Amino acid sequence: MTKTEPMEVLRRKIQIKNVLLRNLLAEFLGTLMLLFFGTSIVAQFILSKETLNTWIQINVGWGFAIAFCVYATAKTSGGHLNPAISLVMVTFGRLKLVHFFLYTIVQTFGALLGSGLMVYYDAIQHAIAHENISTKHLIQLFCSYPGDYLTWRGAFVDQAVGTGFLAFFVCVVIDKRNKIPDAVHPLFFGFILMTIGMAFGFNLGYPINPARDFGPRILAAIIVGKEAFTLMNGMYWIAPVVAPCLGSVVAAWFYHVGFGAHLPEPEEEHYELPMKLVTEESALPLKQFEQ
Amino acid sequence: MTKTEPMEVLRRKIQIKNVLLRNLLAEFLGTLMLLFFGTSIVAQFILSKETLNTWIQINVGWGFAIAFCVYATAKTSGGHLNPAISLVMVTFGRLKLVHFFLYTIVQTFGALLGSGLMVYYDAIQHAIAHENISTKHLIQLFCSYPGDYLTWRGAFVDQAVGTGFLAFFVCVVIDKRNKIPDAVHPLFFGFILMTIGMAFGFNLGYPINPARDFGPRILAAIIVGKEAFTLMNGMYWIAPVVAPCLGSVVAAWFYHVGFGAHLPEPEEEHYELPMKLVTEESALPLKQFEQ
Amino acid sequence: MTKTEPMEVLRRKIQIKNVLLRNLLAEFLGTLMLLFFGTSIVAQFILSKETLNTWIQINVGWGFAIAFCVYATAKTSGGHLNPAISLVMVTFGRLKLVHFFLYTIVQTFGALLGSGLMVYYDAIQHAIAHENISTKHLIQLFCSYPGDYLTWRGAFVDQAVGTGFLAFFVCVVIDKRNKIPDAVHPLFFGFILMTIGMAFGFNLGYPINPARDFGPRILAAIIVGKEAFTLMNGMYWIAPVVAPCLGSVVAAWFYHVGFGAHLPEPEEEHYELPMKLVTEESALPLKQFEQ
Amino acid sequence: MTKTEPMEVLRRKIQIKNVLLRNLLAEFLGTLMLLFFGTSIVAQFILSKETLNTWIQINVGWGFAIAFCVYATAKTSGGHLNPAISLVMVTFGRLKLVHFFLYTIVQTFGALLGSGLMVYYDAIQHAIAHENISTKHLIQLFCSYPGDYLTWRGAFVDQAVGTGFLAFFVCVVIDKRNKIPDAVHPLFFGFILMTIGMAFGFNLGYPINPARDFGPRILAAIIVGKEAFTLMNGMYWIAPVVAPCLGSVVAAWFYHVGFGAHLPEPEEEHYELPMKLVTEESALPLKQFEQ
Repeated sequence: MTKTEPMEVLRRKIQIKNVLLRNLLAEFLGTLMLLFFGTSIVAQFILSKETLNTWIQINVGWGFAIAFCVYATAKTSGGHLNPAISLVMVTFGRLKLVHFFLYTIVQTFGALLGSGLMVYYDAIQHAIAHENISTKHLIQLFCSYPGDYLTWRGAFVDQAVGTGFLAFFVCVVIDKRNKIPDAVHPLFFGFILMTIGMAFGFNLGYPINPARDFGPRILAAIIVGKEAFTLMNGMYWIAPVVAPCLGSVVAAWFYHVGFGAHLPEPEEEHYELPMKLVTEESALPLKQFEQ
Repeated sequence: MTKTEPMEVLRRKIQIKNVLLRNLLAEFLGTLMLLFFGTSIVAQFILSKETLNTWIQINVGWGFAIAFCVYATAKTSGGHLNPAISLVMVTFGRLKLVHFFLYTIVQTFGALLGSGLMVYYDAIQHAIAHENISTKHLIQLFCSYPGDYLTWRGAFVDQAVGTGFLAFFVCVVIDKRNKIPDAVHPLFFGFILMTIGMAFGFNLGYPINPARDFGPRILAAIIVGKEAFTLMNGMYWIAPVVAPCLGSVVAAWFYHVGFGAHLPEPEEEHYELPMKLVTEESALPLKQFEQ
Repeated sequence: MTKTEPMEVLRRKIQIKNVLLRNLLAEFLGTLMLLFFGTSIVAQFILSKETLNTWIQINVGWGFAIAFCVYATAKTSGGHLNPAISLVMVTFGRLKLVHFFLYTIVQTFGALLGSGLMVYYDAIQHAIAHENISTKHLIQLFCSYPGDYLTWRGAFVDQAVGTGFLAFFVCVVIDKRNKIPDAVHPLFFGFILMTIGMAFGFNLGYPINPARDFGPRILAAIIVGKEAFTLMNGMYWIAPVVAPCLGSVVAAWFYHVGFGAHLPEPEEEHYELPMKLVTEESALPLKQFEQ
Repeated sequence: MTKTEPMEVLRRKIQIKNVLLRNLLAEFLGTLMLLFFGTSIVAQFILSKETLNTWIQINVGWGFAIAFCVYATAKTSGGHLNPAISLVMVTFGRLKLVHFFLYTIVQTFGALLGSGLMVYYDAIQHAIAHENISTKHLIQLFCSYPGDYLTWRGAFVDQAVGTGFLAFFVCVVIDKRNKIPDAVHPLFFGFILMTIGMAFGFNLGYPINPARDFGPRILAAIIVGKEAFTLMNGMYWIAPVVAPCLGSVVAAWFYHVGFGAHLPEPEEEHYELPMKLVTEESALPLKQFEQ
């Protein structure tokens, strides 16, 4: 990182000094890269008919994709890449409401563009030409699709809960009193995403991110057809847009009310008993060694 | 974490100062979140008929679920979330016996509530309506169920051993002389859980946690029917409640008797030979280079 | 690491003082070890007919193989093991162009030799004798093979994009402003490789490394037959050689133009709002606690 | 770790002061725990007919089992748990030859005992009673069994190479010049083991540890029958005993000759070019930004 390195020279020439602008750029490009990566993982799952990728690759792949896209943007915009997380930051006083709307727009637009840059053009053309892929699967290449049995209420609860778990554990990780080193935060977010995909993927596929679901859904409507928006009498698409925002805020504050607020300060009394208690009451089990 | 942040304001208003009370709250909510997360993982495995989740997701998912629920509670109550681990802490003089009983009650109650907050209501209703799920599988959504071949003694040994491995490796990780940084302890507990699920899951499904098995079993009895408690002439449910407590304490002290007690202090003689031995006896193999 | 240890004695005798020479040795042997390890992973996948290894082992196995081969060489040559990454370093001013050509030669030669040191000689002989393996699979033991549906353009885009993601995230990881500790860089490269294999493996198998594909392809042509080079009218093999170099350089500079150049310095204004904004505008959500 | 804690009191009473004795105890109990854990993983794979555990659990499970058993013993005996690694340490001048023989004996005896403590007694009895398990599979519960096609030479090469990769990467990890923090060494050994199982498991199942294979083979001969030792005209069992010792020593010194000896000291010239080179020759690619 010496001054003569080409990237440093570039930096001096083009660095965006406006904080909001560069944050929006980071959220836009970060979400674009995330969807570019992520929809390729889903495409490999669907196009190989679940023989190459199985569900574990969806979980682990999306987890790492998020982890490293957050690493790319964390020091600039905070690396939300998800309006539901940005909204949590609004309630934490770390993001202005008006900025939240701007974040949401660029995240959604980034997601839309990212999901369109497919390396699987040949494979999809081939599958369509051989009538080897259903409209459902074509839509799933871009965005979520509910299980046959699922009600709208079920979809809403699913997305509120799934995103809630994300927000809850994001709060666990970033709460400085839990003493998790900054450098592993994005990796841990990835692990959390993996686990959410193992727990809340069955109903509709855990988008848990309004931008990630809505942006690509527009593209699906353009490319595949209006079915992307007509599911459940045209109501389905609302669930993965609205529910994550509600669920994430509730869960984030549930963390602070139920856990974070009660974390002892380093100097406070610890869960380990003070030593006099040890020597008196609890020392019993080791009597056998003390004869 | 400046004083004007909303969470810090909240903290000053609602923080529970009583150590026992806030520890009980942490154990209660932590076990609730763990079961909420964990039973969803199991449900995705069972309801998809092992096509979406396979056994690897049960292992990895539960591992990370435990890791992050422990991160959420470690700095408050120690993050036991398991009466068998709490009992080990009693024998270590780090928890009063009376507190152990309180811990156990809130852990069990948290587990019961957590396993009831299902996002898979629609899917379960659908499976029941189409007679597409057995009573055995319905019970397994909540708690353990023994293999056909399994004797009660086999179940007891299984749970004692499985929880024993958990307690043994927890002791390895938290023993300060092994120099494993605090910040990775919960993650490592998660890795240990993953491995236990790969080794001791075949007989009955590695609950290795009395609260995790007994709490949800009550709910299973209410929702599914009394079969949850009548297995093996009504004796089965006792094994995953009693055996973990026995196994964990024995294994924890086995660690200290067999390993921990003999760990050298940093200043003690090391397993690497003193240098004179190197130059004299063991320097042989490099003679060829010294000509 | 005392002076009398045999490895230290050896070191004093044989250490190569010439920086270029020892870097070339590291790249040569590192790529050799990588291919020795990696082709064994592929062979286990193909020879077991995807029953022992499934695609997840290809992903995780190659990821860790790369991680640890980079650990072995990072402190010497930088641990590129891939001409596409070396070329990125040329554009970063960290490698001379003439050295890049030398790196490429030894990487390719190392890859060729590494892929020939098969422990699966018996198994391959057995499969051939029983006509139990196709020419396609025999070639895949060494190098990439395109899907039936794939066009040359599709193969080129695939390799440019796949290697682009590698180079992009390598830049994320090594950018000091992202504050990812040096000691985990190779591990993170491994995680990135895993994810690329979950996203960009369906078309032709993610070589994303000209040396890794071209070196073993020569061996495949010698052992299996000229089909290794005659695919797509003799044009196929060019795609995984040329596209990675293009994709990686574009992606690396895309990182610096879109992300790296705008990273705030530690002392610059942070994405977290200055506190007066918090107390004024954004403090709203916590009003309920402040009564 | 205050003096009044029960484990500390125990420690003062029973700590073994003799370095050799406590190292032997650590190697004995560590290998016992490793085989107890590991054979349960294999048993879950075999007894569930590869439906519960698949090969990925064998890889990940054994990897973590080794990682945490090494954490338990690393600070005492160095955590070899494998005669092939102990032999490498002899050639490094870190273990006396006579101690190596003692290590080997206790490792083998620990492995034998560990593999006998089965929690799958009921399941095995049930499988035998229903003629649902072959002699081959019964032997595989304890130790390695060669593929039909495998020659003795092939088995020998397989074990030499597999253990060689283990020893090679152990040397990478523990070489202080590679700057991998001590606290992650055992975890990294686990990752290496995982990868070896993904690359060298097809021929005979990657024991790559004479104690791990020979100890349990004795038990297999007692319980299952002499077939454990009569494979390949009674010659098979020798390969996984002798080859690992040869392969590990060769690979360890291959590391030091090819890699370790040439690692630059921190103060030496680095692979990054000195800055004058950057400004002159390599600065070309950024000319476009400098107009």
